[in-house]
Amino acid sequence: MTRTVAVFGAGRIGRIHAANLAALPGVQVRYVCDPVADSAASLAQSVGAQVASIDDAIGDPAVEVVAITSPTDTHSELINRAAAARKHIFCEKPVDLSVPRAVVCAEAVKAAGVACMIGFQRRFDPTFNEAKQRLAAGEIGEPEMLVITSRDPGAPPVHYLKASGGIFRDMLIHDFDVCRWILGDEVEWVSATGSCLVDPAIEEAGDIDTTAVTLRTKSGKLCQINTSRRAAYGYDQRFEVLGSKGLLACGNHRPSEVVQMDASGVHHDKPEHFFLQRYREAYRLEVAHFFECLQSGEPFRTTIADGVAAQRLADAATESWKSGQAVRL
Amino acid sequence: MTRTVAVFGAGRIGRIHAANLAALPGVQVRYVCDPVADSAASLAQSVGAQVASIDDAIGDPAVEVVAITSPTDTHSELINRAAAARKHIFCEKPVDLSVPRAVVCAEAVKAAGVACMIGFQRRFDPTFNEAKQRLAAGEIGEPEMLVITSRDPGAPPVHYLKASGGIFRDMLIHDFDVCRWILGDEVEWVSATGSCLVDPAIEEAGDIDTTAVTLRTKSGKLCQINTSRRAAYGYDQRFEVLGSKGLLACGNHRPSEVVQMDASGVHHDKPEHFFLQRYREAYRLEVAHFFECLQSGEPFRTTIADGVAAQRLADAATESWKSGQAVRL
Amino acid sequence: MTRTVAVFGAGRIGRIHAANLAALPGVQVRYVCDPVADSAASLAQSVGAQVASIDDAIGDPAVEVVAITSPTDTHSELINRAAAARKHIFCEKPVDLSVPRAVVCAEAVKAAGVACMIGFQRRFDPTFNEAKQRLAAGEIGEPEMLVITSRDPGAPPVHYLKASGGIFRDMLIHDFDVCRWILGDEVEWVSATGSCLVDPAIEEAGDIDTTAVTLRTKSGKLCQINTSRRAAYGYDQRFEVLGSKGLLACGNHRPSEVVQMDASGVHHDKPEHFFLQRYREAYRLEVAHFFECLQSGEPFRTTIADGVAAQRLADAATESWKSGQAVRL
Amino acid sequence: MTRTVAVFGAGRIGRIHAANLAALPGVQVRYVCDPVADSAASLAQSVGAQVASIDDAIGDPAVEVVAITSPTDTHSELINRAAAARKHIFCEKPVDLSVPRAVVCAEAVKAAGVACMIGFQRRFDPTFNEAKQRLAAGEIGEPEMLVITSRDPGAPPVHYLKASGGIFRDMLIHDFDVCRWILGDEVEWVSATGSCLVDPAIEEAGDIDTTAVTLRTKSGKLCQINTSRRAAYGYDQRFEVLGSKGLLACGNHRPSEVVQMDASGVHHDKPEHFFLQRYREAYRLEVAHFFECLQSGEPFRTTIADGVAAQRLADAATESWKSGQAVRL
Repeated sequence: MTRTVAVFGAGRIGRIHAANLAALPGVQVRYVCDPVADSAASLAQSVGAQVASIDDAIGDPAVEVVAITSPTDTHSELINRAAAARKHIFCEKPVDLSVPRAVVCAEAVKAAGVACMIGFQRRFDPTFNEAKQRLAAGEIGEPEMLVITSRDPGAPPVHYLKASGGIFRDMLIHDFDVCRWILGDEVEWVSATGSCLVDPAIEEAGDIDTTAVTLRTKSGKLCQINTSRRAAYGYDQRFEVLGSKGLLACGNHRPSEVVQMDASGVHHDKPEHFFLQRYREAYRLEVAHFFECLQSGEPFRTTIADGVAAQRLADAATESWKSGQAVRL
Repeated sequence: MTRTVAVFGAGRIGRIHAANLAALPGVQVRYVCDPVADSAASLAQSVGAQVASIDDAIGDPAVEVVAITSPTDTHSELINRAAAARKHIFCEKPVDLSVPRAVVCAEAVKAAGVACMIGFQRRFDPTFNEAKQRLAAGEIGEPEMLVITSRDPGAPPVHYLKASGGIFRDMLIHDFDVCRWILGDEVEWVSATGSCLVDPAIEEAGDIDTTAVTLRTKSGKLCQINTSRRAAYGYDQRFEVLGSKGLLACGNHRPSEVVQMDASGVHHDKPEHFFLQRYREAYRLEVAHFFECLQSGEPFRTTIADGVAAQRLADAATESWKSGQAVRL
Repeated sequence: MTRTVAVFGAGRIGRIHAANLAALPGVQVRYVCDPVADSAASLAQSVGAQVASIDDAIGDPAVEVVAITSPTDTHSELINRAAAARKHIFCEKPVDLSVPRAVVCAEAVKAAGVACMIGFQRRFDPTFNEAKQRLAAGEIGEPEMLVITSRDPGAPPVHYLKASGGIFRDMLIHDFDVCRWILGDEVEWVSATGSCLVDPAIEEAGDIDTTAVTLRTKSGKLCQINTSRRAAYGYDQRFEVLGSKGLLACGNHRPSEVVQMDASGVHHDKPEHFFLQRYREAYRLEVAHFFECLQSGEPFRTTIADGVAAQRLADAATESWKSGQAVRL
Repeated sequence: MTRTVAVFGAGRIGRIHAANLAALPGVQVRYVCDPVADSAASLAQSVGAQVASIDDAIGDPAVEVVAITSPTDTHSELINRAAAARKHIFCEKPVDLSVPRAVVCAEAVKAAGVACMIGFQRRFDPTFNEAKQRLAAGEIGEPEMLVITSRDPGAPPVHYLKASGGIFRDMLIHDFDVCRWILGDEVEWVSATGSCLVDPAIEEAGDIDTTAVTLRTKSGKLCQINTSRRAAYGYDQRFEVLGSKGLLACGNHRPSEVVQMDASGVHHDKPEHFFLQRYREAYRLEVAHFFECLQSGEPFRTTIADGVAAQRLADAATESWKSGQAVRL
């Protein structure tokens, strides 16, 4: 049996997902939809699909799955339309920058009885997922504290940031999801602060580029997240979880295992450059997981409810940063 | 020229300082004072000193330096007495659990015109100090964010904790000093939270065992501190400082550089067991620094003002934890 | 333009190469040939090819390339037949266990004017190749000494070993190739010794399982190779090259970057389990290289001459082990 | 009870041993003897000893121990004289560059019934010794193969090399001792080769600067040693021992645990600079061991027989290098 897919969005992330989808046994990418005709055509050709309008793709009863990889501000409408048409949905994070609109999507998905997975690809990173499995196996006892380091190699253009919803909604959304996933508990209390240390233009845009967030869960577990829009040494994505019997530390991945020693010191590779490299395998694994769950009926590792919950934390952190005080959820 | 020293306190930390003092060229430990006669006698013998009362030791004009290594609640009185007698002072941290009393000490020291160094030994740890020097040399640009991990292998007895002033004053006092030292800026805003996850008896004693603190400095630099009274894998003392041009990460020290590989994995040594092992060299270097500064007239790396400032941060963090809200200094 | 390929051999390594070939843009696997009908059929189906006899595959003028992934004792005959039919050849190592027969193959390839690459996949390992590129860029000056550690997780069945030509021809053939590749010089002197320490059945079969080989090149560079048929901790594939200005050390790859710390120590992942995991990316890159060179006319990174040269070293090492004396080439 | 010691030799290594001896409880350095009067006087003062002639020191019945830290070519005569005077002996390696003369020393020591320990300090290195203890505890099963990397940061002056007995007797003597100590078996077969790649003046002096040695023990265990007179990145002293159940790898020590990450990569400290730094703790521990054994009557970890055995291996390796053939012992 072959599952037929329509891909909405032929940009950077759309191309990654489309290629991974096309390589899955039993999956056929039938349509690529994008208002930029050239992008749509080029991607369609490379995965053996046709260019179509969203209306036509959704209207084709053979299409069983839609993969939403279009800009953030289109997600909620496309989820709603896909749910209404009874398509299963794979949607890139976030559900929507507005929690209320995200909640409406979650309700629409539930009402339609379709499957909907949100693309928090870090849950599929081989290193992060190995840590989660060991934690679940009790190898370090009960988790007590999580420390997340999450830094981009450099800041995106200011025009991007202006539409991003701010650093907590744009960048830390992933870290909030990791917090909930690893600690396995809901957050009760959030305190966030931050500064603009990288680029004054970011401050002028009403945003910050360096943040420190603390969360406490209902059962008293603690989480600290430190983020920066700039790490001169590359993409820095690590976390450490302390448990009653030990620690699990997830390090960066490197392009090679060469160590060079010379008169100036001992040198290892920098971390893999950015998310496309670091999470290449995670992106592959998450779409495979989507179809495995469709087949088996098992729940997704990242549901639309997870998407809504992370969004709520992003809102709370934004509020805490602005007020200078902690926020209870 | 020989400097003559009286050591007040022959407990665990007193023995370490006395042995390091006795091994310094140009330094003679003349007196050891401790209400526990056996301890005093045993330590005096091992460093070639005499047992004396504090009165006699302070009364001997040949004594130029007093080293205060007695219990915390005696520090401020002994500083005041030593200052009044015009002795130079080396005092273990903290100055006093009460900021006002610590301020009085600082004023007494200033009025007497004596030198007074507070024993924040982490500033002398070879790894931490190497990071500080590279930071000062500009190797990673301007510091922007500091993440401190500070965990004890296990909790002390509850009777100790009851007299400790609480985890922020007892344990994080070192981390607050590291924050000020590494970021080179004063703190403006503190938010602290915590939980009791290790031992319910600690909660009954009105304290917590797991904390997460965030500090923001006047110039917007950020610091996160995570601490636990328990790390199953040993004494975990690390920090990472992110700068505009890179990162400096300070790792734990290990007893040996043996790596064992077998059917169960690849295994390194645990960190050195506790502070006596990890900071053995730091304790040696800090008393050497004290006498070098006495000789040269250079300022100490850790003044009594640093002691007072760290205490203020401990108070602010305690207040923030109790109120659940951030505190501005 | 599409290149049409016939794959000879549908066993473990044949399946890997066929899948990598089928995923290359511009490459079509048209035939799979294997005397085991089920294997041939199963592999043919998964790559969209047909099952064929070798005669038919070689007889099809549309076939431009043959990939020889059949058992070792069939390589030389298949190379000769493919060359006679003017097909380009990708052949798994070794050319042949007999140097004279391998020389005949090399001559046949040359006479026919076809391209022939031997699958020494380690030259395409991302870590090893990164070291080679840095060496070529002069980052550690002139190479002087190479130390190769090459250990399998466990010994193959004795019946396999009996047909293998002995450990030097079967297992160290890769290491001899790495020696020539990294030092960039021809070997003049070989001394080999070994023992049977893993399994007495290997000794009964006339072979050894643990070896130590030293090679000296014409310009005086040195190489030491240590190998074992058993490493309890997994597949151990590393080398270090010392140059006049530094060292390049190539470490193992790990399945994840999780570090676990607990009461028993600090634990990293074991190396990737065996060659199929460790060299997965290398296998992919080497067939891509084959077609890039076909296209560009650039020489292969591993020619049939390299295959013959490594075989000569294996013979010399075998002779040295048996005689207990060094052998000059 | 105090043990009285005379130190013969006030050069670099003499100063280290004298300071460690003087710091031992129950040990008094009474005499320092050295033909260079200034060196003798300076060292004597720093350890609270007197300058004396060797005759006077040996003639003093209160002297129980002599520590021989003078130039190599004086060792055997001083051992013989000390043994004749019934003094216990601590002697820096080697016993003598001539095996027959070393054998005479060993016989003189035995006949006199005095204790004699040879200073192979690597057996006291915390990392190497930890590996030995784990090996003895069976943590990796039976040892099968040892790979030793032993490189100096730079070559000594040629005039030193001319009197050194050659690289095998001067530098690898330590590695031969490590081989016997770790494998716990006697060597049966040695093959050595080498080149002059660092400095042509070394070749003119009849020596080499880069060597590769293989040894096989009576029970078939294998050892490979690679050495160079130059490592641009510092003093490289490591070994790995493969056993039937795993591997123990001994890494270099570093001055600090700072890791710097910046745009050019991830950088660790270079190894500790040279033997005085790396083996500082080993030198301290070996003289402590000497006196503990004197007290307890336990055998030394490194006897004069070990000194003779290592010398025999150095001779055999030298012969193998010169002849180009393996040597059986």
